[in-house]
Amino acid sequence: MAAAEQLNQNHAIDWSQGAAWVDGAIVPAKEAKLSVFDWGFTRSDVTYDVVHVWKGRFFRLDDHLDRFLRSVDGLRMELPVDRDGLAQILHDCVARSGLQDSYVAMVLTRGQPDPAWPKRLPSNFKGRNNLICYAIPFVWIMKPEIQETGARMIIAEAPRIASSSVDPTIKNYHWGDFTNALFEVEDTDADYAVLMGPDGFVAESPGSNIFAVLDGVVTSPNHGALEGITRKAVHDLCELMGQPDAQRDITRDELLDADEIFMASTAGGIMPIRQINERILSNGAPGPISRVIHAEYWKKHDEGWHATPVNYGA
Amino acid sequence: MAAAEQLNQNHAIDWSQGAAWVDGAIVPAKEAKLSVFDWGFTRSDVTYDVVHVWKGRFFRLDDHLDRFLRSVDGLRMELPVDRDGLAQILHDCVARSGLQDSYVAMVLTRGQPDPAWPKRLPSNFKGRNNLICYAIPFVWIMKPEIQETGARMIIAEAPRIASSSVDPTIKNYHWGDFTNALFEVEDTDADYAVLMGPDGFVAESPGSNIFAVLDGVVTSPNHGALEGITRKAVHDLCELMGQPDAQRDITRDELLDADEIFMASTAGGIMPIRQINERILSNGAPGPISRVIHAEYWKKHDEGWHATPVNYGA
Repeated sequence: MAAAEQLNQNHAIDWSQGAAWVDGAIVPAKEAKLSVFDWGFTRSDVTYDVVHVWKGRFFRLDDHLDRFLRSVDGLRMELPVDRDGLAQILHDCVARSGLQDSYVAMVLTRGQPDPAWPKRLPSNFKGRNNLICYAIPFVWIMKPEIQETGARMIIAEAPRIASSSVDPTIKNYHWGDFTNALFEVEDTDADYAVLMGPDGFVAESPGSNIFAVLDGVVTSPNHGALEGITRKAVHDLCELMGQPDAQRDITRDELLDADEIFMASTAGGIMPIRQINERILSNGAPGPISRVIHAEYWKKHDEGWHATPVNYGA
Repeated sequence: MAAAEQLNQNHAIDWSQGAAWVDGAIVPAKEAKLSVFDWGFTRSDVTYDVVHVWKGRFFRLDDHLDRFLRSVDGLRMELPVDRDGLAQILHDCVARSGLQDSYVAMVLTRGQPDPAWPKRLPSNFKGRNNLICYAIPFVWIMKPEIQETGARMIIAEAPRIASSSVDPTIKNYHWGDFTNALFEVEDTDADYAVLMGPDGFVAESPGSNIFAVLDGVVTSPNHGALEGITRKAVHDLCELMGQPDAQRDITRDELLDADEIFMASTAGGIMPIRQINERILSNGAPGPISRVIHAEYWKKHDEGWHATPVNYGA
């Protein structure tokens, strides 16, 4: 039955949910799997990056490749392909999927161990690191219609995992603290959460960087969070627009007292917040600076800012 | 080709590496896979437990089932089967594998999200949590021949993830801090590492609880670590043998000054340490109390202590 099913699938391949590169071949995304023995699963010993494609063009592809290669080095892993080969795989995934707006992931796991090894150490895995890439329909952490109205956020009680234990600048899947924060979101009927670092400063939201407009300055934390590419884009846009911006420590009180708050992520772009804990921001709507940055972010996409056209003919 | 390969595999199934229960069916362990979109991977949103089978009998199966069910509750997940159904699956996996000595895992992931959901919250996954079980050949974190001689351990600089961020009593795959400690092991040519908690007390080793013999008392940390079943077995054995034991905070200095040190884990049992950082313990061999507990642990296995015979006829 499994064989017949397999055969059937080969005759009517469905690429609507995207395409994935796994074990050296491109398959429909829904068939992309990983061994349950891969340390990428059993030890979350994995790093990844996500670049998006908008209207057929990658956004800041080089920035994402740079960061991913740094993460791979940081975990002492090695890609089975070089930088150009990796870019080619990403192009191929998007091309095969046919998607014009896509969430494009590159994932490198430690790989599968050999039970015969006398020691169970990461260095044993030389040549076994496991690359998985995929292009799926664009992911919105916050749906566009909610971006119009803004969302409600809580400051989670759960503290962010300390940077000394797991480096947040090496993009990782250690979401246990984020998951705890999402439980708090569920319990308070909020929409999103932001976590404080163990040092008492604002860290990040699950999957997003956080921005606060403080005395007119667009401010993001300068440590304890992923060095987001969308965050970088926001700071670049501020420079271009002559909008004052800064990266510095943000206290809990400053966040609660901010003029405006928004999140930034590849998966959704600029995401305005209209309430933080009990406090209503900007009369319960996205603030003026958030609106301008949101608009500018997407306008720049249309203008081809930091864009790399997908090679759909590949 | 994929279909032909599949067919071929069905005709000559190899159970030598174990059997796994995935998506409701038992398959050879090496075929056990998980979608790369399962939050169990992309968010390490997963809990698990491991019980072992020795000479055809589960060891402390009820303790492991109890702990796993607590972990599942702690992550607000639900098993697709009840406790008896779960035990049956574990028996079935071991029976199908034919293994007499086995590492038997039960794993529950959050599952695969639906991109159409307006919010991306754990509660959306009701009915989608994904159970995976498997029985593979017994895993030795420390090979038996090394258990005879003892191993060398370092105290890692990398601190354990704080319990306030990720609860270590809910057994999890958040190994980023452990992986950093293993890099230190590689860099110093040691064998194993132990991590300090962020509160400055001894926490645990990657995959193992730690014990120090302090002034003749077999001591394990009382917080900041997994509540190990092998750890429990050690304390039970101490009671039975009239050996003084305790669970309390252990400082770095106490550990460095311990009479003896050993690790305890389902995957390997009692694992003696003969060196901690630069200090040689017990003249560079397992200490006398470690040896007695090691011997008693396996003797009790032969006597059927806390044993549940595997139903191989299932």
